[in-house]
Parts: sequence; C-alpha cells; structure tokens
Amino acid sequence: MNENYKLISVGDVASLGRVVLNETLNLTGAEISLNVLPKNVSVPFVHAHKNNEEIYVILDGKGYLYIDGKEIAIAKGDAFRVDPKGERCIKASEDSSINFMCIQVKADSLDGFTLDDGIITQTKPSWL
Amino acid sequence: MNENYKLISVGDVASLGRVVLNETLNLTGAEISLNVLPKNVSVPFVHAHKNNEEIYVILDGKGYLYIDGKEIAIAKGDAFRVDPKGERCIKASEDSSINFMCIQVKADSLDGFTLDDGIITQTKPSWL
Repeated sequence: MNENYKLISVGDVASLGRVVLNETLNLTGAEISLNVLPKNVSVPFVHAHKNNEEIYVILDGKGYLYIDGKEIAIAKGDAFRVDPKGERCIKASEDSSINFMCIQVKADSLDGFTLDDGIITQTKPSWL
Repeated sequence: MNENYKLISVGDVASLGRVVLNETLNLTGAEISLNVLPKNVSVPFVHAHKNNEEIYVILDGKGYLYIDGKEIAIAKGDAFRVDPKGERCIKASEDSSINFMCIQVKADSLDGFTLDDGIITQTKPSWL
C-alpha cells in the first residue's frame, strides 16, 4: 500500500550516538541526523560541502562550533545555518554533552515556502 | 562581511508557540519551524503541499497525527515524513502539550547525501 507518510520511533539517540533518518523515512529532499556527543567529545574532523547547506539546531547541552577559524560557544536553543563552503566542526563542552539535529539540504533548492506551497484541504480529523 | 554561517538563539518556543527559522537564518533549501501546541490544542486546519515534503520530529510531549483519514498517536522520539499530497494535521493530547520541529523541503531535491557531498578539510580547531 502506497501511503503518503512514514512514521518511526527514533530510538535512544544518547546511547546510539547518531541516528540518521534518510533511509528509515525514505527522505527525498533532506538528510537529517540526530546526534549526541558526550562531554568533551568532538566530531573527529572538519568538513565542508559541495552543494549542500546545513542547519543545526541544538536540542540540549552545550559545546563549541568551529567555523572557518572561529570558535563559538553554543548551547540548547541555538540554531545556525552553514553554507556549503563553511568549514565546520562541533565539540561538546568540558562539562556537558551536546544533543543536536543536523538538517542537510541542497542550497537554493526551495522554490516556495508554506504560503506559496501549502494547500488547505477539506478533509477533517475527528477533533476539528 | 560575508560569513559562511548565521547563528541565532531560537528563544522560548513554549511561550511563542511557533518560531520559524527561514528568515532569521536566511535558509535557501528548507523551511524549518519549532512548534509547541498546548494540551488539547490542534493546528486549526488540515493541509497538503504542491511540491514540498515535510519531516516532523517530535521533541517532547505527545499528541495525534491526522493523515489521509487516519488518526495516529505520536510522542517524543517519533519522526515522520509526509509526502506533498498527504493531508495532515497535528493536535496535542488531552493531558500533554506537544513540541515538534517541522522541516519542509522540495521533494526529490537532494542530489547527494553526506558521503557524496561532504569534503573533509585541512583546517583544524584548537581541540583537534
């Protein structure tokens, strides 16, 4: 049966370290990962991209963002965009883990935001 | 100065209800919103999309997803993709608010995932 959705339970990201949603959700326009770095642990490399923009949302804890030679303190509630050529790395702080979502999309790929692309439909759930 | 990133503090989503990151982060490939519905409150309409796929990640609490006539219980740790034509609505449960992220991207827009699109760079932060 060809349904218009797929739903999963992400699992225990803290013990898994990293959960990537692309394959399990059959994503076609984004790579999405949930990540937990234990305290004092860093992503072990600096990386950039060819075509993809990344958006990070810090869900819990705190740490540091290395970006193009700068080091910036980051914490729960922060969000940032990194352009493809930005050279980036994330590390948890000395006294806290950091829990973040990373969303990777093709830069300049979105033609219309909700106001243009959304359609109000006539079907209703039982509660409306 | 033209930097390869932009960082913000999202603010108190619970009191704001909804925070949309597109404009503040100058996003070019995704519309991203952070949302809190108080207990028993629903998005007031059902919607679909023309071209955009949506991915929802439930960050806290619980509620219900209406999708194409079905009603499904959802809770913290669940994630789901909805294809453009899926008719969808979210409601918080009777006894809990629901806190979720919604990521909207153009369906079929991502050409390469990290393994193809990522580039390891030679610059290093102080901690590597």
